[in-house]
Amino acid sequence: MIIERPILRLKPKADARSIRHGYPWIHADDVVADRRTRAIAPGTIATLEDAERAPLGAVAVNMEARIVGRMLDRDPEAQIGAEWIATRLSRAAELRDRLYDAPFYRLVHAEADGLPGVIVDRFGDAAVIQPNAAWAEERIEDFADGFAALGIAHLLLNATGRARAGEGLDAETRWLRGGVAAPVPVPMNGATYLADLTGGQKTGLFYDQRPNHAFVAGLARGAHVLDVFAHVGGFGLAALAGGAASALAVDGSAPALDLAERGAAASGVAERFATRRGDAFDVMAALADEGATFDVVVADPPAFAPAKPALTAGLRAYEKVARTAAPLVAPGGYLTLCSCSHAADLAKFRMACLRGIGRAGRVPQLIHTGFAGPDHPVHPHLGESGYLKALTFRLLA
Amino acid sequence: MIIERPILRLKPKADARSIRHGYPWIHADDVVADRRTRAIAPGTIATLEDAERAPLGAVAVNMEARIVGRMLDRDPEAQIGAEWIATRLSRAAELRDRLYDAPFYRLVHAEADGLPGVIVDRFGDAAVIQPNAAWAEERIEDFADGFAALGIAHLLLNATGRARAGEGLDAETRWLRGGVAAPVPVPMNGATYLADLTGGQKTGLFYDQRPNHAFVAGLARGAHVLDVFAHVGGFGLAALAGGAASALAVDGSAPALDLAERGAAASGVAERFATRRGDAFDVMAALADEGATFDVVVADPPAFAPAKPALTAGLRAYEKVARTAAPLVAPGGYLTLCSCSHAADLAKFRMACLRGIGRAGRVPQLIHTGFAGPDHPVHPHLGESGYLKALTFRLLA
Repeated sequence: MIIERPILRLKPKADARSIRHGYPWIHADDVVADRRTRAIAPGTIATLEDAERAPLGAVAVNMEARIVGRMLDRDPEAQIGAEWIATRLSRAAELRDRLYDAPFYRLVHAEADGLPGVIVDRFGDAAVIQPNAAWAEERIEDFADGFAALGIAHLLLNATGRARAGEGLDAETRWLRGGVAAPVPVPMNGATYLADLTGGQKTGLFYDQRPNHAFVAGLARGAHVLDVFAHVGGFGLAALAGGAASALAVDGSAPALDLAERGAAASGVAERFATRRGDAFDVMAALADEGATFDVVVADPPAFAPAKPALTAGLRAYEKVARTAAPLVAPGGYLTLCSCSHAADLAKFRMACLRGIGRAGRVPQLIHTGFAGPDHPVHPHLGESGYLKALTFRLLA
Repeated sequence: MIIERPILRLKPKADARSIRHGYPWIHADDVVADRRTRAIAPGTIATLEDAERAPLGAVAVNMEARIVGRMLDRDPEAQIGAEWIATRLSRAAELRDRLYDAPFYRLVHAEADGLPGVIVDRFGDAAVIQPNAAWAEERIEDFADGFAALGIAHLLLNATGRARAGEGLDAETRWLRGGVAAPVPVPMNGATYLADLTGGQKTGLFYDQRPNHAFVAGLARGAHVLDVFAHVGGFGLAALAGGAASALAVDGSAPALDLAERGAAASGVAERFATRRGDAFDVMAALADEGATFDVVVADPPAFAPAKPALTAGLRAYEKVARTAAPLVAPGGYLTLCSCSHAADLAKFRMACLRGIGRAGRVPQLIHTGFAGPDHPVHPHLGESGYLKALTFRLLA
């Protein structure tokens, strides 16, 4: 079968070599944007050619986006249809099946899983898809069929991602298959979380912190734990499942804390779990005024430095978190500080934490550096170790 | 009690501020090396003063070393005797007790545990101490008493560390307390290893890889595993304990492989375990010639780039490991590559691995970045994330 496709051609100055070596993005500046190319409809599959017209692969085009081409297949002849999507989905599922005993995980992590822009979180027989690119949006029914083959009966389209606006996509959220009304119980690290697929932040639960939850849980036997920016209780419930004496979850969101409380009940740890609603900094200051200390303190704030322009302010905010949290740690206790900011790399985030801990007059040992779990693979040509960093310090004095 | 101590004084140009903020080393160039200072005997405790004679702390002096002072205590009056050592040891033990169910771990990790230069690995009621600094060598009996209080009856002085020559210390290895003739069984990640305390490399076992062993073991259910540079079977035995179908351990050392085989027997997995002695590159090439592939391949070579002058050659060697190992990984299988080189930082090591994998014609996902376990804490002012890196890639095609 001969595939008739539009051509996306690189300029002579574009770095065809790095694309050949695996870099998956074609930027607007890199392509010859003649009238015919500019007319390619978003989501169309094109053949990417270098300046000498040698084909480099099949790419998804969106001339309205900053990334005008996303590499789908190194084989320029590849047919990007239902079968191709199903193959990529089962390849992604194979990794997660090997990693986890139960089907609760990030099932598709975009470029790193060969499905550019596409994010899928799985909750048993339900899943939430964020097709943050036009090519995937166009083929959403093929995705739905592919998920059905994996045993996913309920599929929610979550179209609220920040990345979508840049792709010219709308913000509609709706069930593509089936539908689940109540929050879904999610077993993880011995606890049970409740994920509200339609009402929550992002896709209802943050699977990326799983190994960091587990690390903190391993420290928490008999400990009093403070979980700041707790969302639905990620660190706190894992710590209680790991034998913590108590956990106090702090968050600004009443619905999140309600889910955390229901998770604590589902985990059988409700009598050791408490919540406090309010601004994280205010609550930490109030706890310090009360003279409260904890054996383990965790702060997992929202992205303070999502992109470069926010970096300086973001690092100051991370330093402030560290400075405010450190006094709440008992001598010899543990402080876990997290960042999900792309722009704040590990070294910068670490330095901000150390400055904050130092300004609080505490002397730290760094005992653990964690990243997102392996269901969040990293594309070898995108990013260093990914966006999520979790540092655990022991505060000696 | 007034302590009469020699003075180590910083030059005006020395960075007193960073020492005040926690940097623990005083370099030869930073101190006023008058006749009296040069005469301070190695291992003596001195008061560190800044150029304005303000005291900064109690430091261990060794004017014969490149690091002439090592910060022991921010309190200039601190008495560095048996009690001080016992306090530091129990502070270190407290962390490990919290982390592990059984007393098998790195008990003291030098500066990060407030005991500069001192490395101690614990094997139940036995321990191996490497006092790689004159101050600790001088006080070795106080250390021995401190360990006895922690239930350590057998203490081996291992004096073969590279760092010792720079401190002007000899290379004597002897039992300071008790003595253990046979290899010690070490439970870790569900396997049993045999550590030969007197005959092995370093201190007989590498505890630092524990979390990385565990990660690979989590991937290994039903898998055929190749463990290159296997030493006493670190990754291979953990994988078998995790349900691997088979593990083949490759190493150049017959005594190491003998211990690995005895470990396999002690772990009850001998019938799934095999060894192959020889040069790692030769054996990998031979396996490729035989057309062998494995679901999981691990290569944990010795430090190819221990220090900066060896960096370029070291990175080439890591690339070669990746290029040679990648063809042995089945499609969709896993490749774990490790570096214990200080000079090769995470980004450089990662790039070397990716180059090697690319040259082998394979397409990787990076699914895990691991460091040394939390019984190897990092001093906040020394090193980024420590020396040990373990990257796990999934090779898609």
